[in-house]
Amino acid sequence: MPSYAGQPKLMPMPSSVVFKQGEFRLNANFNIALTGNFDDRINRATSRWLKRLSEQTLLVLNPKEIGKQNAPFKIQITQRAKIALHEDESYQLAIKNNQIILSATTDVGAIRGLETLLQLLQADAKGYYFPSVEITDQPRFPWRGLLIDVCRHFIPIDVIKRNIDGMAMVKLNVLHLHLTDDQGFRIESKTYPKLHQMGANGLFFTQEQIKEIIAYAADRGIRVVPEFDIPGHATSWFAGYPQFASAPGPYPIETKLAGLDLAPTFDPTKKETYTFLKAFFKEMAALFPDEYMHIGGDENNGRQWNNNPQIQAFKKQHQMTNNHELQSYFNQEVRKILVQNHKKMMGWDEIFQPGTSNDIVIQSWRGKKSLFEAVKQHYPVILSHGFYIDLLHSAKDYYLNDPLPADHGLTPEAQKYILGGEAAMWAELVTAETIDSRIWPNTAAIAERLWSPANVNNVEDMYERLAAIDTQLEYLGLSHQKNYDVLLKRLTNGGDISALKTLTDVLEPMKGLSRRKQSITYYTYTPLTMIADAARPDSKVARKFEKLVKLFASNPNSQTAEELKTLLLLWQNNDQPLQSVINQSPSLREISSVSTDLARLSGTALEMIEYLEKDKKSNPNAYSALWQQQTSKRIQDARLPRGSVEISPTWLDAITQLTQLVLQK
Amino acid sequence: MPSYAGQPKLMPMPSSVVFKQGEFRLNANFNIALTGNFDDRINRATSRWLKRLSEQTLLVLNPKEIGKQNAPFKIQITQRAKIALHEDESYQLAIKNNQIILSATTDVGAIRGLETLLQLLQADAKGYYFPSVEITDQPRFPWRGLLIDVCRHFIPIDVIKRNIDGMAMVKLNVLHLHLTDDQGFRIESKTYPKLHQMGANGLFFTQEQIKEIIAYAADRGIRVVPEFDIPGHATSWFAGYPQFASAPGPYPIETKLAGLDLAPTFDPTKKETYTFLKAFFKEMAALFPDEYMHIGGDENNGRQWNNNPQIQAFKKQHQMTNNHELQSYFNQEVRKILVQNHKKMMGWDEIFQPGTSNDIVIQSWRGKKSLFEAVKQHYPVILSHGFYIDLLHSAKDYYLNDPLPADHGLTPEAQKYILGGEAAMWAELVTAETIDSRIWPNTAAIAERLWSPANVNNVEDMYERLAAIDTQLEYLGLSHQKNYDVLLKRLTNGGDISALKTLTDVLEPMKGLSRRKQSITYYTYTPLTMIADAARPDSKVARKFEKLVKLFASNPNSQTAEELKTLLLLWQNNDQPLQSVINQSPSLREISSVSTDLARLSGTALEMIEYLEKDKKSNPNAYSALWQQQTSKRIQDARLPRGSVEISPTWLDAITQLTQLVLQK
Repeated sequence: MPSYAGQPKLMPMPSSVVFKQGEFRLNANFNIALTGNFDDRINRATSRWLKRLSEQTLLVLNPKEIGKQNAPFKIQITQRAKIALHEDESYQLAIKNNQIILSATTDVGAIRGLETLLQLLQADAKGYYFPSVEITDQPRFPWRGLLIDVCRHFIPIDVIKRNIDGMAMVKLNVLHLHLTDDQGFRIESKTYPKLHQMGANGLFFTQEQIKEIIAYAADRGIRVVPEFDIPGHATSWFAGYPQFASAPGPYPIETKLAGLDLAPTFDPTKKETYTFLKAFFKEMAALFPDEYMHIGGDENNGRQWNNNPQIQAFKKQHQMTNNHELQSYFNQEVRKILVQNHKKMMGWDEIFQPGTSNDIVIQSWRGKKSLFEAVKQHYPVILSHGFYIDLLHSAKDYYLNDPLPADHGLTPEAQKYILGGEAAMWAELVTAETIDSRIWPNTAAIAERLWSPANVNNVEDMYERLAAIDTQLEYLGLSHQKNYDVLLKRLTNGGDISALKTLTDVLEPMKGLSRRKQSITYYTYTPLTMIADAARPDSKVARKFEKLVKLFASNPNSQTAEELKTLLLLWQNNDQPLQSVINQSPSLREISSVSTDLARLSGTALEMIEYLEKDKKSNPNAYSALWQQQTSKRIQDARLPRGSVEISPTWLDAITQLTQLVLQK
Repeated sequence: MPSYAGQPKLMPMPSSVVFKQGEFRLNANFNIALTGNFDDRINRATSRWLKRLSEQTLLVLNPKEIGKQNAPFKIQITQRAKIALHEDESYQLAIKNNQIILSATTDVGAIRGLETLLQLLQADAKGYYFPSVEITDQPRFPWRGLLIDVCRHFIPIDVIKRNIDGMAMVKLNVLHLHLTDDQGFRIESKTYPKLHQMGANGLFFTQEQIKEIIAYAADRGIRVVPEFDIPGHATSWFAGYPQFASAPGPYPIETKLAGLDLAPTFDPTKKETYTFLKAFFKEMAALFPDEYMHIGGDENNGRQWNNNPQIQAFKKQHQMTNNHELQSYFNQEVRKILVQNHKKMMGWDEIFQPGTSNDIVIQSWRGKKSLFEAVKQHYPVILSHGFYIDLLHSAKDYYLNDPLPADHGLTPEAQKYILGGEAAMWAELVTAETIDSRIWPNTAAIAERLWSPANVNNVEDMYERLAAIDTQLEYLGLSHQKNYDVLLKRLTNGGDISALKTLTDVLEPMKGLSRRKQSITYYTYTPLTMIADAARPDSKVARKFEKLVKLFASNPNSQTAEELKTLLLLWQNNDQPLQSVINQSPSLREISSVSTDLARLSGTALEMIEYLEKDKKSNPNAYSALWQQQTSKRIQDARLPRGSVEISPTWLDAITQLTQLVLQK
């Protein structure tokens, strides 16, 4: 693993980084020379890059001068990349005192290297510079994706574009657009216009916009893989075309976001279904240049099929004993359509069924067991299980989810079928306003898992680098940090947010499926402007607190104690001003007791720190077994989610650690 | 003038507001009934409104239930509005304990009333409510616009859309798009594709996007008036079509943003020029539904004409004695083209020349003198002089700029020709990242000037209401506040911004044309990520400080003194931590001495406050004439702009006021 303490914070970490003495100093004469074999894509990429460099350094750099052969930064490219799976993304970067050389087989490799170079930018009293370094880099996996569900809540094109910028920054290369689901059909169809006209409430991408997204992504070396989820998750198809469902309509667009039981499903027994899908996929195949097309195929509970006598008769007639076989039949028919359109089929675990052709790609949401089963039978797979960023786990959890862990036990041949993975941003509980704060920065940790060597896995180091990339992502226009205050302001009706922010900084939205599984029913029109939408996963402040507690545990010096006390006092004194705010903010009522819990536990922690600083004898009875029991109960009670948020478990664990320290003393 | 101390903060202030006892309490059964004559526009408007209400109150309100006749909020509309000048925008709003009635002649009037209603939303410990009130409202002027220059820096569609939302919030009704200028031709032309292909560096609106903008604006009762600036400001036209210029090409797109001397100008003597413009305007007339089309017509210095012997010959031949007459001839020809396309011509002051037809509209950038001259001759006019928001003056200055001031001296007939005004957002020194912070909140003050009765002109009261609308504008997605931190972070290279923010909060970007007139040449690729781009006009913190100083001067009690001291200590102690940041941030070097000036003057002010609190005798010689001279010099020196920013004049004036207090003592 490369070592780079005190060096620029790179993410994803390149496979080889060797820092040298010296640096390349930037000035207004800086510009870029291009040699080799390339087209206009690299010109656009270098223009964008020069603009970002200019914005960070305030140097006035003329993009029209890119290409002059005497410029100090030389980019050498052998060939133009295809925007396709398995394209060469490697690059080498050599920075010396007077010259920077970025060489790559393809322009996309050079685009990856440009991101690394910008992350190397440093400043000191003399100005801006790049440290001397030699970097050799290439991805570990060829398929490194981000799935964005634009169905449950529509995510408009500007949000998609800024997330593509974020993807490019961390070297992801597949944007997987989940375009159709029960709650919305989000793409214009000229062949069957009732699909978007009746299935989307006016919220869909026009084909012009889709082309714009594809071009924007391709310019950054990113493929766009569309998903049209069939035969289930298909209500929005039937809003305009109920005749292809397995039960009679009408089918209004689904407005519930969870707990759907009898999801409408395509009728796989009708010829007309395939005629319809044939024309539809033909249209989409012409629109999307990527070789892969995703047909979903997940979570069909089969109930519509079971209730339809004609479908039951069809099964009997074809000697099918269960719905899996029927779905397998359906998949085979759809696969034929895709093959006719020169596309490879892709789908979720469920499409992996006996007899399925090996030219499909399986995306695993179920786990590594099903993943490994598939690769053993030489089906190409990508991993999404453990990468569901909508479940709001910690960056650490996502980071350590290796598609090919050390103990995989696979043959070298089978390993090759693991193409990579995809972060999955399901959109039941996000809107355009909050989605960035769920995608970033966690997806950067996933991006590193998929790009960097397997032995780059130090969690503490990852978090340090993640903090740097977190800010740089904001420079691109992403709003994961900047929408926080707006959300809090709405909750205080435009009032002062400082006390609310102090609390919310150590809160986290409920994790996993727990928020959705409360007694509240979420509809597509339920406002997502609650405290749980403002709160971010994996609280940074809680992690900082935990780190200080650990430091204090190993070395209880007065400086660490003071830092801890400053934080704890802030939290202890926060409850009173916050209660006045809550009293005028009906939307905050539910977290009133959360604020009190935080303040009380902070008070307890302050006493513990003071006790730990003092001599043993000063209060020998302070921390009795009874106290332990009561405190443990209070910590336990404080874990209870309220208002769909919880006090960061990291924070509560740190408090628990303090109680252990006083008890051990 | 309506009185409403302690009441909801409305902006623009309605013409009549009478608060009553009681309130309408909101709950989850809230919804909207529609009666009268309307189409789907009001359904979309009420859906959007319900969503915003829901986001602010967390009530789950189903948009599908809009229209049920038993809902407690009733909207009554007589007819569907045309999106055109002089449309009826009046409304009446009556809120009682159990019912809200919004009635309007047109749906656009109802849309205006919906904005007022949302501004009335209040919260207390019991929940959300609207206070009982009776409001009658209509605009003072029928033309209330915002001009956005998308040429000097391109402003993409998502930024335009969110600004349309902002316009709707403050009841503006004209979006004036300045679409062509020397630095860019920002609209797709299918008739002459080289216009956008060669004149825009890839940054332009497609016709689909223009349609999207027009529909988005129309849905909010906002007209879109396009400007195609001719015969000058026309370099980008000639990038693709040099043959219509008054001198031979080639014409690369202009990259300089100021100090252009010999601006390329259409050749008004060639028949081909008009053939070209005829086909172009025919295409644009079909695209833009508004009755008005703006042809610019400003700032043609005539030098290209003077240097062209054929043009000189043409002038002689037609007995023209100067270039104004030639431009008048050009305007007449263009007017004929517009009239053929059923459009009325609009232009800047310069188009008002002897013999010009009265069916044009003149937009005044030169001042009220030329405005009054025109209306006396019964030319319709709108005022933009004094509304140039890119010049970064205070909201107060814009607010008090009345198109029809008390002393206008116009006949009632002449007054009618003053249609209104437009805030003008020229884009030499803004990008998509910063433009919102120049438009908002200042444009809200202009919107009130144009909507509310002339006697609504209390500046202090305006500022209080502006602060409320400022936050509500952020709820719409506008970024005037939220991009501030990102800009500061870039300047500290991702480091801690707290000290920089404390300083920048009392800085203002240079006003008027002074920033552009420094020795720096601004190009279209000059980064606009400087401290001057982060700083906002009309510092709120400086205004707060000034208010405290005034309060202290009239009543030097200890509470006010303490508040002042807290602020002054913050500024005094800010220099040291900030200098460490500046030392590592080359981009901040220029403001090092600004920080020191602020700290030193704050120290001086602290001493003055302490002196003023004490007995007269304690230090009778402290504030001598020499001290006065030195302090006055230091304040004067601190006024010097550095890094294109200056310490807020409001702040420095408040310091000056303190020196006067100690000298008077």
